[in-house]
Amino acid sequence: MNGPVKIALDSMGGDFAPSVLVKGAVLAHQESNGDFRLILVGDEVKIKEELKKNGAEGLPFIIQQASESIRMDESATLSLRKKDSSIAVAMQMQKDGEADAVVSAGHTGAVMTSALITLGRIEGISRPAIATYMPTQREKDGVLVLDVGANSECKAQHLLEFGIMGSIYSESVLNKANPRVGLLSIGEESNKGNDLILSSHKLLLESQLNFVGNVEGNKILKGSCDVVVCDGFVGNVMLKFAESIDGFLTSIVKKQIKRNLFSKLGILFLQASLKRLRKVLDYSEYGGAPLLGIDGVCIVAHGGSSPKAIKNAIKVAYHMSKKNVNFKIKEVLSSYWQRIRK
Amino acid sequence: MNGPVKIALDSMGGDFAPSVLVKGAVLAHQESNGDFRLILVGDEVKIKEELKKNGAEGLPFIIQQASESIRMDESATLSLRKKDSSIAVAMQMQKDGEADAVVSAGHTGAVMTSALITLGRIEGISRPAIATYMPTQREKDGVLVLDVGANSECKAQHLLEFGIMGSIYSESVLNKANPRVGLLSIGEESNKGNDLILSSHKLLLESQLNFVGNVEGNKILKGSCDVVVCDGFVGNVMLKFAESIDGFLTSIVKKQIKRNLFSKLGILFLQASLKRLRKVLDYSEYGGAPLLGIDGVCIVAHGGSSPKAIKNAIKVAYHMSKKNVNFKIKEVLSSYWQRIRK
Repeated sequence: MNGPVKIALDSMGGDFAPSVLVKGAVLAHQESNGDFRLILVGDEVKIKEELKKNGAEGLPFIIQQASESIRMDESATLSLRKKDSSIAVAMQMQKDGEADAVVSAGHTGAVMTSALITLGRIEGISRPAIATYMPTQREKDGVLVLDVGANSECKAQHLLEFGIMGSIYSESVLNKANPRVGLLSIGEESNKGNDLILSSHKLLLESQLNFVGNVEGNKILKGSCDVVVCDGFVGNVMLKFAESIDGFLTSIVKKQIKRNLFSKLGILFLQASLKRLRKVLDYSEYGGAPLLGIDGVCIVAHGGSSPKAIKNAIKVAYHMSKKNVNFKIKEVLSSYWQRIRK
Repeated sequence: MNGPVKIALDSMGGDFAPSVLVKGAVLAHQESNGDFRLILVGDEVKIKEELKKNGAEGLPFIIQQASESIRMDESATLSLRKKDSSIAVAMQMQKDGEADAVVSAGHTGAVMTSALITLGRIEGISRPAIATYMPTQREKDGVLVLDVGANSECKAQHLLEFGIMGSIYSESVLNKANPRVGLLSIGEESNKGNDLILSSHKLLLESQLNFVGNVEGNKILKGSCDVVVCDGFVGNVMLKFAESIDGFLTSIVKKQIKRNLFSKLGILFLQASLKRLRKVLDYSEYGGAPLLGIDGVCIVAHGGSSPKAIKNAIKVAYHMSKKNVNFKIKEVLSSYWQRIRK
């Protein structure tokens, strides 16, 4: 890939669009070093207004008009009818080679459906998956969990594919050498789990992945492995549970502090640390989640993303494009199928 | 039920047996008011030694000799061959009417299997479930989650039964009026989830439970409902994930504090609050988890339980016996089946 990576930012998706998106784009641009170029997709008038508010009219963004946007309460499939939505236009730009990647904080289901229909799957992948980076005790050494919501019903072959894609992404984008792949289960022994886990365990063992066996729910935050594979139902429940910890702690700490005079003093001193702790727990800090298995680069971010989270999602899109993740997935899959067919 | 409730405590089960068990028994006795009587089941010599160490030789415990114990790494079914294990002896005592309840911090699988074989299931219940009480933002107002590990593969009928048992337990033992029952899923809408969830949703809607619909993973700690129903695979993953939060936070906070001088000062003031926070997160504080659906009262506690956790588990056993939870489950089931057959 020559020249800067072209990233189409769905500027109308998310709870605070286009304001947060434009702010995120400005932040990202400041750190770009000319490595990537941003295309702001959406209502041109509104986007220009936002740029003006941020004193960013002079920045070299490309603005691509899209007259519609998809509401969070719309159905993913119905949204396909909106041919001129910011999501659809951004995807089409990638399809046409005018963009190398798409970033959206909009309706995840709509992004997924639009990506599948417009860009299609990587050959050999039956089901794309949403991969999320979660923090661990090792701090900067997080864990990639997939799938976290694209597939509520899975077969062993799907979990194997998730393992392959997660491993390649982890190695290429997260710079982990020989990533340890774990299978989420309810016991470490190979005979523990449900039918899906037992058959997936077998396939993963036979694969050429660095498969470290089953991992239990209490090993994720410990950082016992680099990639955790699970079906999208379990993954989504666990991710959402994890995302709620911050609110739970904040609420409990507030109540505790009210009760104790010394704590009120202590909290003044501790504020900096608590703020940093909250950052570790704040999943939006880690930027977007890649849709792995799509024949293109699509990064989904939280609807409630901050400008910083958008900036991080843009960076994820940049790295995933630059590192040719999909090309590597295709290579591994083709050698995998050749081996299996022999 | 007349006279004190007789509770058989498996005194050889758990990571620190019999020491922690005997200490827990002593704590429980101090708060008993003659409401319950404890039978310490296990190696008589060792139990007497522990009682002596705690200056508790004079307390009115019954000691029941059991010559064997089940190791944590043994298989649940193989453990059945040990007819004189502390778990087997305790269960047999309940079967014979010499005890009203069993409490064990030993091998959960062995307790479950032994309970099923010795005491059997409540008529009309296809699958017993492990129910765990989890804290929420509302502090003392926690949520009962079931199943958290007994059944890794479930059908809709099982989840309905979990809802019925959880609702009755929540009302009788946790004193919640008309408990709100939620179905764990990956979207609040009734059409979100996998096949199991879609069919369970229907059954729960048709039931006479106070069914509040699907709940997502981020609603558990918020306390959006009183009972959360899920299959044992998802429930176990989520519970173990939750249990690991304390260690994760402790580790992160320690690292943050090392970096910041003011935080070191602050932590001195905050210590009392942090300790209380940890207590909220420490699931062992909530005592044992009932095996619901067993035709008897069986409470399982963590292998690593503290004496206080054992005391709490004994209290859970007392309340479950006293409140005739199983009798109420039988009543509701019989009227449920009558309604369905009409």
